[in-house]
Amino acid sequence: MKIKIIVTLKKSVLDPQGTVIQQALNGMGFNDVNEVRQGKFFEINIDEKDQSKAEEKADEMCKKLLANLVIEDYKIIGSQ
Amino acid sequence: MKIKIIVTLKKSVLDPQGTVIQQALNGMGFNDVNEVRQGKFFEINIDEKDQSKAEEKADEMCKKLLANLVIEDYKIIGSQ
Repeated sequence: MKIKIIVTLKKSVLDPQGTVIQQALNGMGFNDVNEVRQGKFFEINIDEKDQSKAEEKADEMCKKLLANLVIEDYKIIGSQ
Repeated sequence: MKIKIIVTLKKSVLDPQGTVIQQALNGMGFNDVNEVRQGKFFEINIDEKDQSKAEEKADEMCKKLLANLVIEDYKIIGSQ
């Protein structure tokens, strides 16, 4: 089963990388872009057929390794 | 309007960073993880109310800046 996860910086945390991308886009003529925030995406292949069990494991992985919960949020966006 | 974009390495491109994450997860006891691939996530705020126009612009941004189409694929996963 494939699990898709997105890890993003919390809203309250500054995202300088996103700001640079926004400035680059503005400079290229995309003037109506007023905010960019960057995050990470993970696609994890788990040898587990039960969807809820697989998502539970993915949740644990996020908490233990993939996301830094002090400054980041994570979201499981899909499994198949 | 907020557009969400995922940029991933093409299937044929090696992902050493994903492999390291997989090994780390295996070492932490998640033995049933057999592949991890990492990508990038962007949330772009565009000052454009028309959804299809906004997605069209996001598509252009991906082609011109956000994704390297030689080795990466991109996908607009949502707009609101």
